[in-house]
Amino acid sequence: MTIEHRDNPLRPRHVVIREMGLRDGLQSIAQVVPTAAKLQWIQAAYDAGQREIEVGSFVPARLLPQLADTAEVLAFAQTLPGLCASVLVPNLKGAERAMDCHAESMMLPLSASHAHSLANLRKTPDEVVQDIARIRDARDARGARTRIEVGISTAFGCTIQGRVEPEEVVRLVETVVAEGVDAVSLADTVGYADPAMVQALFAQVLPVARGKLDCGHFHDTRGLALANVFAALELGITRFDACIGGIGGCPHAPGASGNAATEDLAYMLASMGIESGQDIEALLALRKRVEEWLPGETLHGTLWRAGLPKTMEPA
Amino acid sequence: MTIEHRDNPLRPRHVVIREMGLRDGLQSIAQVVPTAAKLQWIQAAYDAGQREIEVGSFVPARLLPQLADTAEVLAFAQTLPGLCASVLVPNLKGAERAMDCHAESMMLPLSASHAHSLANLRKTPDEVVQDIARIRDARDARGARTRIEVGISTAFGCTIQGRVEPEEVVRLVETVVAEGVDAVSLADTVGYADPAMVQALFAQVLPVARGKLDCGHFHDTRGLALANVFAALELGITRFDACIGGIGGCPHAPGASGNAATEDLAYMLASMGIESGQDIEALLALRKRVEEWLPGETLHGTLWRAGLPKTMEPA
Repeated sequence: MTIEHRDNPLRPRHVVIREMGLRDGLQSIAQVVPTAAKLQWIQAAYDAGQREIEVGSFVPARLLPQLADTAEVLAFAQTLPGLCASVLVPNLKGAERAMDCHAESMMLPLSASHAHSLANLRKTPDEVVQDIARIRDARDARGARTRIEVGISTAFGCTIQGRVEPEEVVRLVETVVAEGVDAVSLADTVGYADPAMVQALFAQVLPVARGKLDCGHFHDTRGLALANVFAALELGITRFDACIGGIGGCPHAPGASGNAATEDLAYMLASMGIESGQDIEALLALRKRVEEWLPGETLHGTLWRAGLPKTMEPA
Repeated sequence: MTIEHRDNPLRPRHVVIREMGLRDGLQSIAQVVPTAAKLQWIQAAYDAGQREIEVGSFVPARLLPQLADTAEVLAFAQTLPGLCASVLVPNLKGAERAMDCHAESMMLPLSASHAHSLANLRKTPDEVVQDIARIRDARDARGARTRIEVGISTAFGCTIQGRVEPEEVVRLVETVVAEGVDAVSLADTVGYADPAMVQALFAQVLPVARGKLDCGHFHDTRGLALANVFAALELGITRFDACIGGIGGCPHAPGASGNAATEDLAYMLASMGIESGQDIEALLALRKRVEEWLPGETLHGTLWRAGLPKTMEPA
C-alpha cells in the first residue's frame, strides 16, 4: 500500500516556480519600489535561475502607483534570454497595452466568488468571462502572440462571500477553456485552502481543463501554502506561483503572510529531489535586498532564519 | 487517476494531537513557568479538548530546572478524567520515577543519529536500546502499567551528523519493537524532513513496526511541519505531536520555530474534515495565556494572526 505513495508516478520531477513578488507582492504594499531597483530585482531573480516572472500590472497608475512603471520593467525583462515575463491585465484596455508591449503572457483574473468579482472589478464572473472572450478576439484579430492565462481567484473561498462552490470553479474553467484561453490556474487568494480541498478541487477541474490547468497559486495566510503545494504536486501539477520573502499579504490582515515564499518553496522542492532550477543561496541573498527595498515591511518565510540543512549545504 | 487521491482510503477520519508544549516546548526555553500556571495550562488544554499531553521530563532538576516540578504537574493531570499524561524519561532512573508516579505513558528518546545520541545521552543508539530493554524488564518485573513509547529522534537527519540513513531508522524500530515496547514514533527533531522524505521513511518503517508506529513529530524549523503532517496522513498516520504557539525551537537557532503549532494543526485538520476533538478558539485563547507565561519569548504559528476563515467561524 505504501510503495504506491512513495513512488507516486504523478509527482513531477521538474517544477516551475513563477515569481509573483513584483506584481502580487508589490500591489498590496503601499510604498513604491524605484524602477531601477525593480530591474536589479529581475536581474537577480534571473541570475538565481528564475525563468517566469510576473513583472507588473497594466492597471491605471492612479489605482496602483507602485506598478505604474510596468511597461519599462517589462521592456527590461524582455532583454533577458529565455525569461517569460507576464503582466496582469484586468480588462481589454490593459490587454491592449500588454500586446502593444509584446508581452509573452498576460494574466487575466477571474473571481469564482460572485461577491469578490463585484467588489474587485464591479462585474459578475460571467461578465468577466465575456471580457476574456473579447480579449481573445482582439488578440487573434491583431495576430499577437501574447498568451492568455486565466487565474481563477478565490477558487477555494472568499473573505466576502465565504464558501465558493467547486461546481462554480469547474463551470468557469470549462467556459474559459472553451473560449480558447491558453492556460488556467487556480488561486487561493485569501488562504482558505487546505490540502484535501486542493486535491478535491484540482481533481474536479483537471478533467474539464483539457490540459490547460498546470498552475497553483497558494497564499500562506494560515500557514498551509507549502502543504497545499505538496497536495497539488501529488496530482501532477507542475507550476506554482510564489513571492520572494512571502510578500503580499492582505490589506485587511496586517502582518499576514502573502504568497508562498519563493525561497521556502525552492527549498522544499530541492529537498524532495524535484528540479526547479533555483539557486537557493542566491534567492536568500535577493530576499535581503528586497528587505532593503521595502523598509519597514514585514517579510515572511522560514528558511532565511534557519538556513539550509547540513545535508544540503553547498560543498 | 485523481479520484484515488481525492478519496485516499488511508487518510484517517480521526486524529489525535498530542500536546508537547509543556515538555518539548519548555525544555528549550530557559525561563521557568510556575507550577500553578502549568496546572492552569493543562486544565485549559483539557477544556479545549486535548486528551494526550506530555507534561514534563524525569531528568535531574539541575539539567532542566524548568521541568523540576514534573511529578506535581503529572499528579494534577492524572485528576482529569480520560486524559493520557505522558512524561519523557532518558534512562532507567527516570523510568522508575515515572512508574512510581503511575504515569500512564513514558516516552523514551532514541536518536537514530549516532553523533546526536553521543552528544545528548553519551551513549550509542545500541546502548540506548539496551537501556530500553532494561526499562521494559523493570516495568514488567514490578507489574507496572506504564506504557513505553520510543521516540526515534533525528530520524530525518541531524545537525551534527547530517544525513541519517533510513536503514538505521528501520533497524532501530525493528529492534525496539522486538524488545516489546508499546509504541514508536518518528521525530524530525531538527526540521530536516520534507513530505517526500516523510512518505518514504514511514513507508519503509511501517511494515517492520507491527502496528506500533502511529505517530509523527515534526518541527517547523523550515516551514514544512504541516506539509509533513499531510504527507504522513496520506499513509494513515493518526497521531501527531504539536506545541501550542509552536514553542520549542532550537537553542542554536534563535527565533526558529519549534514543533508544529497545535492551533495551526488543529485548524488544518478541521478544515480537512478530520476530527481531532479540538476547540480552536479555546486553543487560541490558551496561546495568549502561554504568551503571558513566557514574557519575551517568540511564539510561532499563523492562525492566531489571520483567524479562522469565514467558512469556519462559529455560528
